[in-house]
Amino acid sequence: MSGQVVTFGEIMLRLNPPGYTRLVQTETFEASYSGGEANVAVCLASLGLEAAYVSVVPPGPVGQAAVNAVRRYGVDTRWMLRQGDRLGLYFVERGASQRPSQVVYDRARSAIAQAEPSAYDWPAILDGASWLHTTGITPALGERPAAACLEAVQTAKRLGLTVSCDLNYRSKLWSRHQAGATMGRLMEHVDLCIANEQDAQDVFGISAPDSDIDGGKLSRAGYVAVARELAGRFGLERVAITLRGSLSASHNTWSGLLYQDGEAFFTPTYDLTIVDRVGGGDSFGAGLIYALQTGLGGQAAIDFAVAASALKHSIEHDFALITASEVAALAAGNASGRVVR
Amino acid sequence: MSGQVVTFGEIMLRLNPPGYTRLVQTETFEASYSGGEANVAVCLASLGLEAAYVSVVPPGPVGQAAVNAVRRYGVDTRWMLRQGDRLGLYFVERGASQRPSQVVYDRARSAIAQAEPSAYDWPAILDGASWLHTTGITPALGERPAAACLEAVQTAKRLGLTVSCDLNYRSKLWSRHQAGATMGRLMEHVDLCIANEQDAQDVFGISAPDSDIDGGKLSRAGYVAVARELAGRFGLERVAITLRGSLSASHNTWSGLLYQDGEAFFTPTYDLTIVDRVGGGDSFGAGLIYALQTGLGGQAAIDFAVAASALKHSIEHDFALITASEVAALAAGNASGRVVR
Amino acid sequence: MSGQVVTFGEIMLRLNPPGYTRLVQTETFEASYSGGEANVAVCLASLGLEAAYVSVVPPGPVGQAAVNAVRRYGVDTRWMLRQGDRLGLYFVERGASQRPSQVVYDRARSAIAQAEPSAYDWPAILDGASWLHTTGITPALGERPAAACLEAVQTAKRLGLTVSCDLNYRSKLWSRHQAGATMGRLMEHVDLCIANEQDAQDVFGISAPDSDIDGGKLSRAGYVAVARELAGRFGLERVAITLRGSLSASHNTWSGLLYQDGEAFFTPTYDLTIVDRVGGGDSFGAGLIYALQTGLGGQAAIDFAVAASALKHSIEHDFALITASEVAALAAGNASGRVVR
Amino acid sequence: MSGQVVTFGEIMLRLNPPGYTRLVQTETFEASYSGGEANVAVCLASLGLEAAYVSVVPPGPVGQAAVNAVRRYGVDTRWMLRQGDRLGLYFVERGASQRPSQVVYDRARSAIAQAEPSAYDWPAILDGASWLHTTGITPALGERPAAACLEAVQTAKRLGLTVSCDLNYRSKLWSRHQAGATMGRLMEHVDLCIANEQDAQDVFGISAPDSDIDGGKLSRAGYVAVARELAGRFGLERVAITLRGSLSASHNTWSGLLYQDGEAFFTPTYDLTIVDRVGGGDSFGAGLIYALQTGLGGQAAIDFAVAASALKHSIEHDFALITASEVAALAAGNASGRVVR
Amino acid sequence: MSGQVVTFGEIMLRLNPPGYTRLVQTETFEASYSGGEANVAVCLASLGLEAAYVSVVPPGPVGQAAVNAVRRYGVDTRWMLRQGDRLGLYFVERGASQRPSQVVYDRARSAIAQAEPSAYDWPAILDGASWLHTTGITPALGERPAAACLEAVQTAKRLGLTVSCDLNYRSKLWSRHQAGATMGRLMEHVDLCIANEQDAQDVFGISAPDSDIDGGKLSRAGYVAVARELAGRFGLERVAITLRGSLSASHNTWSGLLYQDGEAFFTPTYDLTIVDRVGGGDSFGAGLIYALQTGLGGQAAIDFAVAASALKHSIEHDFALITASEVAALAAGNASGRVVR
Amino acid sequence: MSGQVVTFGEIMLRLNPPGYTRLVQTETFEASYSGGEANVAVCLASLGLEAAYVSVVPPGPVGQAAVNAVRRYGVDTRWMLRQGDRLGLYFVERGASQRPSQVVYDRARSAIAQAEPSAYDWPAILDGASWLHTTGITPALGERPAAACLEAVQTAKRLGLTVSCDLNYRSKLWSRHQAGATMGRLMEHVDLCIANEQDAQDVFGISAPDSDIDGGKLSRAGYVAVARELAGRFGLERVAITLRGSLSASHNTWSGLLYQDGEAFFTPTYDLTIVDRVGGGDSFGAGLIYALQTGLGGQAAIDFAVAASALKHSIEHDFALITASEVAALAAGNASGRVVR
Repeated sequence: MSGQVVTFGEIMLRLNPPGYTRLVQTETFEASYSGGEANVAVCLASLGLEAAYVSVVPPGPVGQAAVNAVRRYGVDTRWMLRQGDRLGLYFVERGASQRPSQVVYDRARSAIAQAEPSAYDWPAILDGASWLHTTGITPALGERPAAACLEAVQTAKRLGLTVSCDLNYRSKLWSRHQAGATMGRLMEHVDLCIANEQDAQDVFGISAPDSDIDGGKLSRAGYVAVARELAGRFGLERVAITLRGSLSASHNTWSGLLYQDGEAFFTPTYDLTIVDRVGGGDSFGAGLIYALQTGLGGQAAIDFAVAASALKHSIEHDFALITASEVAALAAGNASGRVVR
Repeated sequence: MSGQVVTFGEIMLRLNPPGYTRLVQTETFEASYSGGEANVAVCLASLGLEAAYVSVVPPGPVGQAAVNAVRRYGVDTRWMLRQGDRLGLYFVERGASQRPSQVVYDRARSAIAQAEPSAYDWPAILDGASWLHTTGITPALGERPAAACLEAVQTAKRLGLTVSCDLNYRSKLWSRHQAGATMGRLMEHVDLCIANEQDAQDVFGISAPDSDIDGGKLSRAGYVAVARELAGRFGLERVAITLRGSLSASHNTWSGLLYQDGEAFFTPTYDLTIVDRVGGGDSFGAGLIYALQTGLGGQAAIDFAVAASALKHSIEHDFALITASEVAALAAGNASGRVVR
Repeated sequence: MSGQVVTFGEIMLRLNPPGYTRLVQTETFEASYSGGEANVAVCLASLGLEAAYVSVVPPGPVGQAAVNAVRRYGVDTRWMLRQGDRLGLYFVERGASQRPSQVVYDRARSAIAQAEPSAYDWPAILDGASWLHTTGITPALGERPAAACLEAVQTAKRLGLTVSCDLNYRSKLWSRHQAGATMGRLMEHVDLCIANEQDAQDVFGISAPDSDIDGGKLSRAGYVAVARELAGRFGLERVAITLRGSLSASHNTWSGLLYQDGEAFFTPTYDLTIVDRVGGGDSFGAGLIYALQTGLGGQAAIDFAVAASALKHSIEHDFALITASEVAALAAGNASGRVVR
Repeated sequence: MSGQVVTFGEIMLRLNPPGYTRLVQTETFEASYSGGEANVAVCLASLGLEAAYVSVVPPGPVGQAAVNAVRRYGVDTRWMLRQGDRLGLYFVERGASQRPSQVVYDRARSAIAQAEPSAYDWPAILDGASWLHTTGITPALGERPAAACLEAVQTAKRLGLTVSCDLNYRSKLWSRHQAGATMGRLMEHVDLCIANEQDAQDVFGISAPDSDIDGGKLSRAGYVAVARELAGRFGLERVAITLRGSLSASHNTWSGLLYQDGEAFFTPTYDLTIVDRVGGGDSFGAGLIYALQTGLGGQAAIDFAVAASALKHSIEHDFALITASEVAALAAGNASGRVVR
Repeated sequence: MSGQVVTFGEIMLRLNPPGYTRLVQTETFEASYSGGEANVAVCLASLGLEAAYVSVVPPGPVGQAAVNAVRRYGVDTRWMLRQGDRLGLYFVERGASQRPSQVVYDRARSAIAQAEPSAYDWPAILDGASWLHTTGITPALGERPAAACLEAVQTAKRLGLTVSCDLNYRSKLWSRHQAGATMGRLMEHVDLCIANEQDAQDVFGISAPDSDIDGGKLSRAGYVAVARELAGRFGLERVAITLRGSLSASHNTWSGLLYQDGEAFFTPTYDLTIVDRVGGGDSFGAGLIYALQTGLGGQAAIDFAVAASALKHSIEHDFALITASEVAALAAGNASGRVVR
Repeated sequence: MSGQVVTFGEIMLRLNPPGYTRLVQTETFEASYSGGEANVAVCLASLGLEAAYVSVVPPGPVGQAAVNAVRRYGVDTRWMLRQGDRLGLYFVERGASQRPSQVVYDRARSAIAQAEPSAYDWPAILDGASWLHTTGITPALGERPAAACLEAVQTAKRLGLTVSCDLNYRSKLWSRHQAGATMGRLMEHVDLCIANEQDAQDVFGISAPDSDIDGGKLSRAGYVAVARELAGRFGLERVAITLRGSLSASHNTWSGLLYQDGEAFFTPTYDLTIVDRVGGGDSFGAGLIYALQTGLGGQAAIDFAVAASALKHSIEHDFALITASEVAALAAGNASGRVVR
């Protein structure tokens, strides 16, 4: 547990209308700053680990606000670069009932997409760290971040860090073919691969037989097969998969699977009333990293990760601002929601 | 599909406390402008049809704001009259769980109630239009709007437009007897009659046997009988009925029925988590008009209408700000609420 | 029904972040003023009884705002004392799904905790009143309020008032042992004891066999036994118990039990979608006092009390701002949540 | 100083957009409840006098909210009538710089306008009171309130109360001719007449020579002449006039004049940065009533009244929520605005 | 006055923190949509002219919201193009006292910058119009909009429209040299050139001797010389210049100059308390176009234009939502800000 | 400029109603976290220095939020202690015009007041730091913080740090006599003493002849005498005094004086339109520390400090979120408030 967890990826301005207001009718946006890897760093710091976040923001008050958002929750932002022209941003419209949430991205040519790989001093950044986490979004942002990402994981492995990667496939950023090729190269350096119930199929063409994702039918045996195939293909130490049953935009089921050493650990299934589901997968990754860094075993680790991400779904905006004791209480089975006085 | 859809009725200022705050405790109102027929026009324009709205607002900034609210979403407001003393208004308190939503009207002697029937130039307004829609609220506002309404539907029929009317019975505006007499005369010119599960009984005394509305027991066969009776009595081409199961103020079921050419088409039943149910029936009407105007058959048309109105229940305020592709996706069966990125 | 109901206890500033925002992320607090006994007084006045509230606030605008909050809803605040240094306060973070609501108190050394028992002129305050209500929170605030509370109930009994007390055990304020000793002395003067499903065990060690509160398994027979034991031990005329099933922070079940004259009356169980559950128990007490003061019999009284408190769970902040006709409609079985126009 | 001050007039819902937002662009209204005579009652209660307010509100939550707004600040609302169909309302758009504030009324046929004069039991209401205050708005609302108003002042005089009346001419409610006739009859029973720099001219045709109100040139001697003429014509004990210099919507000057026993007392002139000027004149009336009720002499009384109303201009919404010590500090010359810690 | 006024330029999402909150501290943005030429179109429509706006927005809800914002106020948006990837946006931080307002642009590669000149059908767009207005911002956005702009003014002249152009120099978009070359070509087709006190120098190197802009010293004679030089160099019919004296971010002086037919008309100088000064220059242009279109002479026209823009400074966001009668009242000398009831 | 600046003092929750709403009427509070020494640390970090803040917060989310607020802006919070029962808090009501801002404290028995002096490891905290800053508020909080403060300045001097102290007299926390005695002992270790125009008199009885603070008459010569006397009495290297002229709560003048090496440097006087004046003095201290740390001479240093604090008055809440370049621009004379694009 000694040493920082370092995460690397894009931070964006998130703009969402209040409540259930639609984008075409809103006159106000709630402003927050987030991104898959920033979300993981903030969640780790909230849980109590040392976490550092590496990204690029443009000079000026908007980029500064992004840095502020992350360091506010205790993340080390020493390595943030300030260059480039713009901060990527995205609009989120919260769904409800049969109306899905909608995300509109405006992230092209952002500061991180333009930064040269040489701008990051990975040996210095990773010196003394114990874990590196990144996701499939970062290389999808362009050739430069892809190269930087590869260099980061290579350096990390060389320095003996554990490396985790969340596949996080985004069809608007690249094709399945591009994703497969690039992520395949990254995977060679990865110890822990994280995915949702669709990613493995989208990126590597590995599918769970007997599952119908939109219909909410998820086959346990099928996902063990996916995890086994992933682990085997890339020599991964662990594979973790989140399993979401989408009953409606307001109501989901949520569980997870950890595959390690040939063994599969499933969690109980939570019945989620959704407050804000963006960032749910990131909090799962953070919960799992925390659990493994603090020495939990397979079942306890995946239980912690799924409990952490269940809690995230009840929290506004992307950041999973949760404490380790809150997660532990839920993982221990207290899901009654009784008032804590 | 050529030609505008014209709707005619009252537009009011809607004042609702934020969230679940009650009227006796609020210090703020969300302000929007709406009315059954304005809601239909806005929904039609959002779906992509040409829509015009005819109403009366007083001169000055409050009336102007009402016009602005409608034209913002693409409705043609060329025929709006500016005269009279006041804009009608209503207060809406959002219910939850066992506490029902509450609507308090303050609409007496509004601009539309006072406007002489001669103030509207129906031949000019309807020139080139293909459809006229109005509701049972308009004639309930007083003798002048009732006369204007009758003249409108007569002119429309004469010019060959399709005419639709939503019964929309409001017991605070008139008695069942008054409603029955006036609406009976209107119905003679109507092609499509829209109603909820109570209206036919309230206005025309036609009830569905074996149904217990407050108890949520709705008999399918009973409603076919209601539709058949309505169609027969007034020589209607089509009758459409919405079927709401009120489990609580937060949770409803929702489905619909279209009766045309002696055939009844039922939709699947949606399980609704309610954001704002005011305007739900209007979006059903708009969805149905859109579906019929774009040539959908009976089953597809009612499926589209019910999907449109299911989505409305997840949207703040009265307007159903939905696109045709959103509705089509839901009508096609994708109700999982998965994030659209 | 003649005569005021007087309640006595602490009023605090309640600070809660808007919506589901967490305390560590909020930049705004909704400010309201509340406390168990103030909540009862406000609910009684809303229901239509004459209610007076006795408490202590510091001089200055914050104490004044607390007084204003209560008299706004028609409570007689003539007897409010203005002395001491500070108003107690508490932070409430609204939970959702598996994340429980969290209450953080900052109420030590508040104005009421410091006021000498002699500061209250109970014979004058209670002159002409018909009912005195207090709760187990008041004596838990310290020796002075405990002494004042005892003097109040003694005076009330002497003057012939009905006395009710809600056990309301707060583990952060005192130990079970302290609570048992002090509350035992109070109970000697009490006619109606109100408790939730845990209080009797916490304060008096009386438990319902076969119940598992966190697991949501509540034994009806067990709670009758608890009520009988309470009534017998302290010679109580009536005992009322609320029964909450906590499925999640968003979803509870809710029912109640009234034990009087050896007979137990249970209510139907409501399925609650939670808006704000703080103050739920207080509205039960108020509903019951109202019902008994207006002469309802055992079954009708407990039905009214549970309906009142079911409605409270749908209302923002602590106060149950409900009318008697709203409660009566729900108690009569109309739980459909259909819009009231 | 013994005995309540009773005020009588209309209470309305005030709807204003936040900040400097215009009516045509707003999506939210701040909701408050006010009216000239309610404003006086609330200010008197804030200053520390016993004040009662008599008005009429419709049954239901909107009328209840109006009652709540007034009793929140300590006003006795025992005599409020609940009948009629609607609460009058008005929209206020805050001006700034060269853009004037704009008030749009929608008050026709409100509950008070429809209430029969016999609905008020003036002998009971005024029993034990020491002062009655009303304004020229009340009789302007229609024949019924005019008759009620006349009966109120007659009863008050008969019972020995002091009677004050603020001319408060509203050109949208009645003509100068109507106002002159009706107000002339009322004036016969009035002891203290309050007016702004235009009212005497509008209502009684008494003008200050050498003054140019829009240009901000106000002649001191001219206003003494106006006061003397008013006092003489109606046998008034005192006449008080506010003198506003309108430099812009953001910046006014403010002073006042009290004429009593043939002597004129002028105050210093305040330089006002305007927060909300609606209700400014009412707070002047309240300040003066308070000052006279508490025994201040002519100069001290008018200084207190003008200081009270200067403070009002810095407070949001109509109510002058000020304490007597705040006013006394300003009247004593401390206008530096230094932080009070 | 027959015929639409058509304006052409970029529309952006404007994000500003509420009140005086800084960008680095805000958690909310007010969202509005604006741009120099959209502002002119909206102001013209508010004043009562027929106005059409030509621009490019991306498909999807954000672009749709931009269209909605403009048509809400009555602008014809028939010619809006929907293509490209993103809507440009900018952040505005409101200044106060000595802290200047700050604008951060993120508008590169927006939809309008990428649209081919051939995408606009100028002959159709301008058919039947009487006036075309554009600004120096449009050609500064890139070669494509510059070519489109040139084609628009050429077509307009060919069709006999009046053409106006606001120099609006933006140093972040292009150099003075680039601006001079491009704007020089545009000017050949322009009838009315609008500029602020710096533009003529920045774009064409024409400066007012004896003026010190930052110091607020503006020489009247100097600006007549600037106007004369501009008019002569490009054969302009009219030149209008705004003259801003910046005392602080909260307090400006404001006046203007119209040079036509060799004659210079100056306006009185307004003392402005600033609410939102972004869009101030655009409302001047709109006011002037309105005045000239409605036949006002030189002095009356410039007085109207400066009054319109003085009012704009008191209104939130970019749009000058003002009526012609409001402007006329101010231009006629009523700057007292007295409440309009 | 090498080495951190360390500040030590209390951090509180600040609760202020939005805009100009009064405490007795508000339903919402803006929540921020601040305190004199935290304000200095945040301003220093914003300006670009390394700053650390030492304080005590209770465990739990409220204390955590206080830590978050400070580290969000880049302050090192490594040394924050988490113990004790409560966070102090204060209410701020923003004044305007003649109505002063009002501050109500509720800070007794806060975490910092209860922490033992031994809880702070000053040698470790100050290791490698170059400057220690504290204020007269810290020792006024009680014997424990007073002892801790003394130990801090002694350790700092021993380690060769520069020590600054802002007298910051608070009459609600201690008497003048107590302040004089305690602050006199602290002063022996201080290099730079900061005061406002009243502090020296309140704490040490040193007054400026010919000054009338409430009346806004401030004698330059008098304040040089005060500074000279202070410097002489305690052997101070530098004395800095802020000079506020309070014209109203909305309008102040602001300047400053630095006395060093027998020489007095005065700044120009700024005319301030007030947004939020709480924290104005703290930003002066921070500006001066920054200026001296970065090597500015006497005149430049005091000019920078006064410009920094002039800017603060235009910023919401206590923190002076300003950059060094913004301050430098103002200090260089650009006070025009022209928009920065």
